[in-house]
Amino acid sequence: EVRSGNFATIVAAPENPDNPTTPEKVELGKMLFFDPRLSGSGAISCASCHNLALGGTDRLQFSRGHDFQETGRNAPTVLNAAFFQNQFWDGRAQGLEEQAGGPIQAPGEMNMPADKAVERIKSIQGYHEYFKKAFPNEEDPITFENITKAIAAFERTLITPNDALDRYLRGDKNALSPQAIRGMETFDSIGCTSCHAGPALSSGAMMKFDYGTDLGKASWTGNPQDEKFFRVQTLRNVSLTGPYFHDGSAETLEEAVTTMARVQLGVTLTDQQRDDIVAFLKSLVGEMPDISVPVLPPN
Amino acid sequence: EVRSGNFATIVAAPENPDNPTTPEKVELGKMLFFDPRLSGSGAISCASCHNLALGGTDRLQFSRGHDFQETGRNAPTVLNAAFFQNQFWDGRAQGLEEQAGGPIQAPGEMNMPADKAVERIKSIQGYHEYFKKAFPNEEDPITFENITKAIAAFERTLITPNDALDRYLRGDKNALSPQAIRGMETFDSIGCTSCHAGPALSSGAMMKFDYGTDLGKASWTGNPQDEKFFRVQTLRNVSLTGPYFHDGSAETLEEAVTTMARVQLGVTLTDQQRDDIVAFLKSLVGEMPDISVPVLPPN
Ligand code: HEC
Ligand code: HEC
Ligand code: HEC
Ligand code: HEC
Ligand SMILES: [Ca+2]
Ligand SMILES: [Ca+2]
Ligand SMILES: [Ca+2]
Ligand SMILES: [Mg+2]
Repeated sequence: EVRSGNFATIVAAPENPDNPTTPEKVELGKMLFFDPRLSGSGAISCASCHNLALGGTDRLQFSRGHDFQETGRNAPTVLNAAFFQNQFWDGRAQGLEEQAGGPIQAPGEMNMPADKAVERIKSIQGYHEYFKKAFPNEEDPITFENITKAIAAFERTLITPNDALDRYLRGDKNALSPQAIRGMETFDSIGCTSCHAGPALSSGAMMKFDYGTDLGKASWTGNPQDEKFFRVQTLRNVSLTGPYFHDGSAETLEEAVTTMARVQLGVTLTDQQRDDIVAFLKSLVGEMPDISVPVLPPN
Repeated sequence: EVRSGNFATIVAAPENPDNPTTPEKVELGKMLFFDPRLSGSGAISCASCHNLALGGTDRLQFSRGHDFQETGRNAPTVLNAAFFQNQFWDGRAQGLEEQAGGPIQAPGEMNMPADKAVERIKSIQGYHEYFKKAFPNEEDPITFENITKAIAAFERTLITPNDALDRYLRGDKNALSPQAIRGMETFDSIGCTSCHAGPALSSGAMMKFDYGTDLGKASWTGNPQDEKFFRVQTLRNVSLTGPYFHDGSAETLEEAVTTMARVQLGVTLTDQQRDDIVAFLKSLVGEMPDISVPVLPPN
């Protein structure tokens, strides 16, 4: 990892000591991530809303969950999500393992109760050996906890290194255009880096974003002091993951940047500053993980 | 290709002289196959119902199309579909190019009128270079026809060679178990091969299947003589593509085989014969094409 001021290259996601990554776990987790049989209808998988062909999102304002219901929030990318302890826009889950249990069971997303999910996966004979390999020494490894652990291990591999910023930080001074360099400097000097810094270009903290009607963190704590607190979003690959914000209300990066400057910093950007920052943000598309479609065991 | 009686190895799909396969067309076609932006909602792609992780099907009785509507028929596999001139269970499209136009526009599937599909794809700047490369010498290559041509070219690569039957035909006499060999011989001697023969284990013809209430070919010709005529289905990878028949009414291969023998041949199989044939059919899982998830251009 190369650091320079508020910026740092992205290399690998932090490990979870309670769920060490192994190739067997990653392989199983990838299968589960792609398997629609984890949903009540059998038609929706994690990959439906976190499409790795589309930057780990569905590029919709709101996703289509069970029964084509629209989700209440925009689907954030799973790329580099492994950098965050606070998961979801409102930070209501801690770590990827806890997070993964949410969408499977949510009636408006995959609509599959945990015990039914375990039953369904157990009924697929071909999965048994994969769970045994991923969780050796466990007598009965097909559990909901292990489903979420395997998915989390897979997600820790969804890192996108070597974008233009990182090549620049490593010494390739031509990796960023002059405009992107200006944008980077403005981004730093006006204070975006007070929240968007480090490898993921996010502190990972919950911060007030006084915008829209969503109560953010207060929607699960019930605490008025948490109103409109949201997890600072990563800006890696941000040009692939529009529309923007938890409510998908900003269609373009120009709009999102202008709003951020105004709402978070009280700054009105000149058109030049805005365009420079957008040029900088567009340089943050890294190398996508090479994901081959898994071959899932038959029912 | 090795032939032996009614059986033959599967090697490559027949080419369409009007749409010669090129690597550029295949690459573009793969992108389009995976791109949900070809649907009205932006949430459904070809891969939603023809999931290459699930044998090119969704393993549902009926697929979930636009608005979570159930399709009227079971989704057949796209694996080896390139062998067929008669497309769809009822043979209403000729060749993969014509076929591909159907689901994009069908209100219950992708719900996207042809002109809107072209408009949407044109609006994605990153697609322009791919169309130019796939259709050089064309002034305005982003057309609905070229969308379907590229998808068809990709589908011609979805061939699954080298299953146990093929290795057996090539001389590896241990590739099939004794039971599978018995099943193969029964399959041939009782007459299954009058319809299920050749590389795809299908003649590709429209044949009467007097089962269920679907009118089959007559549903689009209106001709009573076409009632309940259906395209003979491939049996390659058949153990991955349940449930069976155009209405997905047979949950197991055992059930499907028993019904076929009774309805198509007037034969009541012994349990032994049925199990032998099923063992043979299970040997027909070939090498899946290695599909890496494409990285689609942003909006
Ligand atoms: C129907 C759409 C849908 C499905 C299916 C779905 N998600 Fe999500 N996902 C979302 C939405 C919407 C959010 C944001 C919800 C919120 O913040 O309240 C989200 C949030 C997340 C996050 C948080 C990322 C961050 O930066 O905080 C992760 C990680 C994630 N999903 C992974 C998964 C996994 C793993 C699965 C499958 C087990 C899955 N999702 C299934 C739509 C979906
Ligand atoms: C005080 C903290 C803070 C500051 C300062 C800040 N941001 Fe953010 N940023 C956030 C939070 C929190 C979010 C998530 C907003 C939400 O809930 O929709 C976010 C989201 C974004 C997004 C949208 C990401 C997405 O995927 O939807 C962009 C783009 C962005 N910030 C850019 C900037 C820029 C450019 C600046 C400086 C002009 C800036 N931010 C300053 C906290 C901050
Ligand atoms: C909503 C589900 C759904 C979507 C989306 C979908 N299909 Fe299908 N597909 C089906 C169903 C159901 C059938 C059978 C319909 C029939 O026979 O009347 C079918 C039939 C086919 C067949 C015929 C195979 C054969 O053996 O005759 C091919 C090829 C095919 N689809 C390819 C595609 C392509 C390419 C796309 C995207 C452009 C696509 N499908 C989108 C459900 C879907
Ligand atoms: C007269 C022609 C004919 C004969 C003989 C025949 N089949 Fe079929 N087979 C078909 C047709 C047509 C279909 C498609 C049925 C439909 O529309 O659902 C089919 C479908 C199948 C399927 C289901 C494939 C799927 O993906 O749903 C199986 C399995 C099958 N046949 C096995 C056999 C076996 C085993 C025999 C011999 C016992 C046999 N068939 C004899 C014409 C025939
Ligand atoms: Ca977004
Ligand atoms: Ca089927
Ligand atoms: Ca049945
Ligand atoms: Mg707006």
